[in-house]
Formats: sequence, structure tokens, C-alpha cells
Amino acid sequence: MWWTLPCARVTPYRCISDGTDGPRAFSLLHEINMSVEELEKKKTIDLRKKYIGPSCKIFFSHDPIKIVQAKGQYMYDEKGQRYLDCINNVAHVGHCHPEVVKAGAEQMGFLNTNTRFLHDNLVLYAQRLQATLPDKLSVCYFVNSGSEANDLALRLAWHYTGNKDIITLENAYHGHVSSLIDISPYKFHQLSDAEQNQFVHVAPSPDVYRGKYRTDHPDAATAYADDVKDITDNVHKKGRKIAAFIAESLQSCGGQVIPPAGYFQQVAEHVHKAGGVFIADEVQVGFGRVGSHFWAFQLQGDDFVPDIVTMGKPIGNGHPMSCVVTTREVAEAFMSSGMEYFNTFGGNPVSCAIGLAVLDVIEKEDLQGNALHVGQYLINLLEKQKEKHPLIGDIRGRGLFVGVELVKDREKLTPATAEAQEVIYKLKEQHILLSADGPHRNVLKFKPPLCFTTEDADLVVEKIDLILKELEEALGLKVNNSLNTENEKRRRKLSTDEKEHGGLNHSNKGVEQTKQRKRMKT
Amino acid sequence: MWWTLPCARVTPYRCISDGTDGPRAFSLLHEINMSVEELEKKKTIDLRKKYIGPSCKIFFSHDPIKIVQAKGQYMYDEKGQRYLDCINNVAHVGHCHPEVVKAGAEQMGFLNTNTRFLHDNLVLYAQRLQATLPDKLSVCYFVNSGSEANDLALRLAWHYTGNKDIITLENAYHGHVSSLIDISPYKFHQLSDAEQNQFVHVAPSPDVYRGKYRTDHPDAATAYADDVKDITDNVHKKGRKIAAFIAESLQSCGGQVIPPAGYFQQVAEHVHKAGGVFIADEVQVGFGRVGSHFWAFQLQGDDFVPDIVTMGKPIGNGHPMSCVVTTREVAEAFMSSGMEYFNTFGGNPVSCAIGLAVLDVIEKEDLQGNALHVGQYLINLLEKQKEKHPLIGDIRGRGLFVGVELVKDREKLTPATAEAQEVIYKLKEQHILLSADGPHRNVLKFKPPLCFTTEDADLVVEKIDLILKELEEALGLKVNNSLNTENEKRRRKLSTDEKEHGGLNHSNKGVEQTKQRKRMKT
Repeated sequence: MWWTLPCARVTPYRCISDGTDGPRAFSLLHEINMSVEELEKKKTIDLRKKYIGPSCKIFFSHDPIKIVQAKGQYMYDEKGQRYLDCINNVAHVGHCHPEVVKAGAEQMGFLNTNTRFLHDNLVLYAQRLQATLPDKLSVCYFVNSGSEANDLALRLAWHYTGNKDIITLENAYHGHVSSLIDISPYKFHQLSDAEQNQFVHVAPSPDVYRGKYRTDHPDAATAYADDVKDITDNVHKKGRKIAAFIAESLQSCGGQVIPPAGYFQQVAEHVHKAGGVFIADEVQVGFGRVGSHFWAFQLQGDDFVPDIVTMGKPIGNGHPMSCVVTTREVAEAFMSSGMEYFNTFGGNPVSCAIGLAVLDVIEKEDLQGNALHVGQYLINLLEKQKEKHPLIGDIRGRGLFVGVELVKDREKLTPATAEAQEVIYKLKEQHILLSADGPHRNVLKFKPPLCFTTEDADLVVEKIDLILKELEEALGLKVNNSLNTENEKRRRKLSTDEKEHGGLNHSNKGVEQTKQRKRMKT
Repeated sequence: MWWTLPCARVTPYRCISDGTDGPRAFSLLHEINMSVEELEKKKTIDLRKKYIGPSCKIFFSHDPIKIVQAKGQYMYDEKGQRYLDCINNVAHVGHCHPEVVKAGAEQMGFLNTNTRFLHDNLVLYAQRLQATLPDKLSVCYFVNSGSEANDLALRLAWHYTGNKDIITLENAYHGHVSSLIDISPYKFHQLSDAEQNQFVHVAPSPDVYRGKYRTDHPDAATAYADDVKDITDNVHKKGRKIAAFIAESLQSCGGQVIPPAGYFQQVAEHVHKAGGVFIADEVQVGFGRVGSHFWAFQLQGDDFVPDIVTMGKPIGNGHPMSCVVTTREVAEAFMSSGMEYFNTFGGNPVSCAIGLAVLDVIEKEDLQGNALHVGQYLINLLEKQKEKHPLIGDIRGRGLFVGVELVKDREKLTPATAEAQEVIYKLKEQHILLSADGPHRNVLKFKPPLCFTTEDADLVVEKIDLILKELEEALGLKVNNSLNTENEKRRRKLSTDEKEHGGLNHSNKGVEQTKQRKRMKT
């Protein structure tokens, strides 16, 4: 009677047919056992239009992709066409990683219930996660999504500090629940002033390429942190009080922004003095993606420890789960409110089994090491492209979190928004999935599964090279050779030296560029 | 290379040992293949104290249960002891239902990605869900939890109406994210007035047993609805405007409250006139639990259709998923804000495969029919107990959603809170899981998996009988026979007649009781 998982190769779940002639045979292509398509693509599109909220956007809306299967860093459409996936950071250890699937499938057959019962998976997983963090971050809350995690982080901060006001970064995105729209300028800039929440204060994005203080600034980290201090001072003058500063450790939707080293330390000092806590949002960038460290906030140095860390997307390789980790002090304050915290699905044995399997795979396959190695390889390839392509304004990244900012003019930094879209669409035609984001939608975002290889990097950069060449020819753009001389070479050398010290690529690059700009202006 | 699911019986996911001697052999008991315990129970408790947020409470905290496996309506502890599960409404079609596990496991091996790609599971599932609802509720948003669903419902209401204020019910619980704590008196009554949100207005719970208008009221439905109208009027006088009225179709944590028939229709009329929408929260009570209908709001009659319905707990039999369904009009208004709605995990192919499997099983095994049949059987058994036990003040329920309110005095309705706890603890000693809830924690809550049988009902009621007998003897309580005469019999008859008409048990019961009370007072 007890059900066992099937011995034969898996077949997709099939539901009641929709008046069509039944499942259409699916050609066997590549090395994988392909899936069966249920509906003609047009029918899928029609049903989606009919039944799914129109605010839920699809990639390539004029000709969306129907994906039926995925493996590693590849996705497959209904015709068996393979796509190289450079964007799905959720499929962190590779799409449908067998060990993760096995862990989830087996635990689903045993027990899937809530945390009001004792279960080993919960505590062993919490212990394993904690071991990746500084000692002080020791108390876990398991929830279902990055949004739930960030919302809980706000609740923890509010209870612990007794204060209400939040400082967030320009262009930040922290999730889709209402409390997070309030602190996500990436979202709320679309709202009227009246709709924006008065307890939220926006600090400049620490973007040393396009931001308020650039690489020509003698100390951009301090300058950006001082702006946060100014906010805390102004808030106090208004008789309000700071509960928290929240930032992604590296800003993702905001344009793959890498804050200058030392920024978080100084911000934390200002925020603590103002009575608030520091929330590091690792939803997009955690779990070894940055290569040199397991958590992106660690790029700032060992002397920086946030008060609350939130996790999400990659944590379960696609399974809906997430986590908030904080200090004992914050956790005790939250408890002292007397309000129980219960999350129906959070921390269930299946989610924890999957979470443990993801950690196992990262370790066993040294995916963090791969992110460091392949990420640097990719950045080096892209740097070479920059010498050839005037459309490339900036290359920035850590591990397999890389941004390529396209500009029409390297001096004025005019965003090449349409061109970035063109690159994305042309890559799609060549079966490579990449996206563009940032406030001007001109930053090509690389955030592939961590099993991405140097060959994959070669392929995508080769295609980008050709697309940019065509675009530049059409636009009549040529690279200004004066921008690609000794200074650029020196910058790249610096960049390599800095990498070895775990520093930030940006620190001197802009100084050189600005000197150059000044020279060109005179 | 491609991994296939194992042929042998499943074994639990095993993670790195914690310095213990490794997995301890687990005795093979009952008909199922038992799991392996990783840690000694004491170690599990210690690790939980160390790593899990102390606000996350456990059942039976002085002696919590370690559950390692579950099947159908049974859970098993680390020693192989079986527990009858009367409380896990999440394991809706039975714990670890093989068809649900199979659907999830297979899809996990094929593809688990976001809704920015076309996928048949998403649209077929939306179509299937929609088919269970009135036509007008046709647009779905897939999210990860009941909390995410209710938060999105608020966002939809705010965008559609352009208004801000929310009317919620006394003792309501709608979720754990901050926006929902604001509208959950069950939670926020623990906060100071200053912490409570000024845009939230609390209407009386339509509880005809203990509430403001009881069964002796000639028209409790209208009286309760008029209170909602008064709120809308007062809000308008203050220059504010109503965005939504939100209520569970049957209040769960609030004490298994069943609103009088016609209440929702009248509330909807008042709220629509005030410019707001009606949100029916089906997170706890949907998917056939009430037996006579698939959705609990349908108990109010075919002439009632909410503007937004939220789903959760049972939707994926434990898998983290949920859904919001609304009208085309509301969905278009939300889209016109220009803000995309993206939910990383919501609507992924695995969640949808699992959701489809749950709907299949409900249908194939006629679990809605079972809920109706076994639920009525359980209510009948409990009614007989009421004749014997003065501690039982009220029995109310629909299908397998049943509440037994314990009182020390049937006239004063003094809550028997400690006694309810005693019942729960004594049942646990006899390996039956039941809980007590409501504002006075004196309502025994039955919400078992829908595969619950009449034999299970016999067992739990037999045990409750013995426990109540002991308790009453200790308290010196005796049933007042005048309460158990013709009137009670007439009430039960009415109740049966009403059931046949899909009406509500409460409608005349209280009238009789009140007449009786009046007689006793004179």
C-alpha cells in the first residue's frame, strides 16, 4: 500500500486535458529525458491571459518562451531547444539538481508538517546555516519567501528598537508585500508622493559609477555613509527615531551595485548610534554566489556583522523557503512582546531537507570556488570587450554576480537602455537568457546557476561581442582609443591586485577615468 | 547521468551527524515503513532552544512531541507511537498522500522555475481552481502562503478602490506579515493602542453563541451587518474611505465561529456602497472542508460572491503555496498602476503540479463528501455528549470544521479555559492531537485531514467523554436536566432539517436557549 517513488524515468504530472487531443509527443533531444507538452503554446498563452493576473509579466512578452524542463545551467523549451541560463539565481546549484530533488522527494513521502512538533531537520538545518555566519548571528526564523523574510526583519527591528523609521537605499527592491513596497524605491517611485510612506527615508545608492560620489571621490564609502548619518540626524530633528537601515549586500535590481569597502561599517556605526539596527538583505546574493565569501556582506570585511540577515531565492534551489537570522538579543526582545510567531509552512521538514541538500551540494561541488573562478574569468572576458566596445561603460561584479552597464557616451554616462534590450532580445534568439535591470534598465545582469562554466562564459561573451559590434555599427559608435590606453591597463592590474586582497574593483578605476575626463575637457 | 527516483522504499534525508553516534535504528511499527531518528529527543530540544526563534512556540511545551512520519490522519513519533491527528488542516487530503508526493517529486525532477516563462501547469491549475468558483472570480495570482495571499488582497483592494481603510472582525487572524498583524485583533490586542493602526476598524464577531447578538436576537445577521454599516458611516464622517471588509468565511482562530446566513450579503452591500470590496479569507476553511460546498463562503448562499478570495493552508497539502482570486475588474485596476507583480516562487511548476494533484485527490476520493458525512456524524456524537456534560456549552460546525465551546456555566458562559487545556493534554496522553482556540482558548477545534473516518470520530469522542466526566466530577459539576429536554431535541431536529437545506445550525438554537434562560430567570 505504501507508495514508493517510480523506478522508471520520471514523466511529468499530467492533469485533466483541456479539450485538446491530449498530450503531444515530445521529441527526445539532448541527453535528457524530455517532458511532454500538454497544450499548444498558443493555448498556453491564451489561458494565461484569461486566468493569470495581468500584472504578472512574462519574459519576452511578444514571443514568450515555454520552458518544459531544465538541468544544470540549461533550460529546454517545448521543442527541445536548449537555452543557456545566465539569469536564474534561484536555481543556485543547477536546475533540478538530483541530490536536492531526491532530498525533497524523500522527505515529502515521510512527513511535511509545521514546526509545532519537534523535528531534526529543522534544528540540524538551523545549525548548519548558523555555521556559515558570524557567531553573533545565531537565531533563525524559517519562512517561505524573501518577502516574508524581509517583512519579519522589519518586525524584529521595530520590536527590538521600539522605533519605526526605516532607511533604505535609492533603487532598492526588498519584496512584494505591502510593507516592502514601502521601502522599495525600485517599486514605489511609481507611486505618488501621497502614497509613499512617511516613515521611510531614502539614502543615495552607493554606486561609484553613476551615483552621487564616484570613483574620483577620495573616500566614497565615508561620503555615502555620511549621507546616512545626515538622514538619522534629520529624522531625530523631526522627533522620529530610526528602527533600521536595510540594504542588499550588493544591490541587484538596483543595477548590480557594489558598495565601496568600509561603507557598511560606517553606516552600521551611524545607525546603531541612532538606535537602529542593520539589516543585510542576502536574498539575491547569498550562499556563495560572490565566490570569495559565503555571504556578500562579508565582502566588506570581518569587522562588519549585521544585526539581521535575510535569505531567500537560492536557499532551496527553487523550493519556496527562506530564513531570517538575528542575534539572541533581538530575538529575545521580539519574544518579550508576548506575540507568538507562527509560520504555517516555514521550517517544515521538506524545506529543511532541501535546504540541507543545497548546502551539501555547494560544499561537495565547491560551487563557491566555481563562482570565484568562473566569475573572474567572465569579468576578464568582459573587460576585454570593453576595450573594443564603446557601449560598455562599466563592468562590475563579484563571483557570479556581474553587471555590464551599457552607455551611449562614456563621459555623460547616457544610459543605453534600448541597446541593452536589443542585446537581451538578440541573445534570446541565439538561445541565451540574460536580463537588463537597474534604474535605467541598461545593466546586463549575470546571475547564473553556480555550475556555470568558463565555456558558458566564452559562449555568451562571444555572442555579446557580435551583437554589440552590429549595434555600434548601426549607431556609428567607435571606441575612443584614448580611453583604452595605459590607464585602463593599470586599472585592470589594480583590479586583479585588489581581488587578491578581497577588495573592490571600483576603488581606483573612476579616479583614473575622471583624471582622463578632466584631461579631455581641458 | 540523469537521476531517476529510487526504486526501493524511501529513506529519510540524512544530513551531517551532530557528533552523535549516527542515526539510531527506528523500530518498524504499524503498516508503514518507519523513518530513522537522527538525534536523541533531548538533543533536538536543546538545538531548538539554541537556534530557533523563541517566539516560535511548540505544542505541549513541557513535553513536546517529536514527529518523524505521518500518513493519512495519523502521525508517528520517534518511538513509532501513532497519534490520531484532529488538527492538521494543512494535510488536507491526508499526510503524505502518495499521489500528491508523486506529482511534486516528479515535477521537481523536471522543472521548477518562475512564472516569467510559459508553463502548462500554471494555466491548467488556474483553470481548474477557477472552475470551483463563481464565474466572476476569474483572475489568479499565485503566491507562497496565506499571509502573502491576504497581503496581496489588501494591495488589490487599495489599488482598485483608491481607499485605505480596512474593516476586520473582532478576534480575526489573517496572517503574520506586518500588514496583517495590523488587521488581526487576535494578534494586535496584545499591542498598545498607539501601536494599533488607525486605518483599521474592528466589527463585532458574528458569534451568535457568545457575541453581541446571540441566537435569541430576531435577526442577528442584520444586526451584525448593521454594525459594519455604522463603521462605514463613521469612517466617512472622519473623511476617510473604506477599501475593504475582510473576514474568514468561518472564523477559525477566533473560535470556530459560523456567521449567521445572510450576514455576508448584507455586509457586502454596505461595503460596496461605501466604496470598498469584500475579501473572503478561505485560508483555513476552503477546499471542501465544510462538506456541503467547496468554499465556505458558499454556505451563505448562491447570491453571495466576494470580490477577492484568498486561499492557503490546504491548497498544497503542506507544500508552501497559496492563491488569490479576484475579478477581472480588480485585476485590471491593479495592473493600471503600472507596477509589475512578481513572486519568485509563486505559481512555479512544482507548486502547480501539487495543487492539481490535491484537487484530483479531493475529487477522486470524494473527500468533500466525506467531510460532510463524517463531520455530521462527529457533530451528532458531540451533541449527545452535550446532554451528558455540563462543560459543553456549544457545538458548532460545518463538515470537518467543528468547534466545541467549553463553559463552566451554561447561563453565564464562563469560559472553561483551564478545562479545555486539560482536555487537550489528556487527549495527547492518549495519543490524540486536538487544540483549543478562540479569544478565551476554550473552544476545542476539530479540523482534521479530510480522510478522517467515523471510527476516528468515535475514538476521539469516547476519550473526550471520559476526560470530561473526570473533570466534571472533580469540579462538582452536574448537567442541569432542564437544559436537555424537549427544546434540545427540537433544536437537533431543526439542525438536521437545516442541514438538508444547507442552512446554518445556529439559527434557532439560541432562541430556544434564551427562552429557556428567561424562564429560568423568572
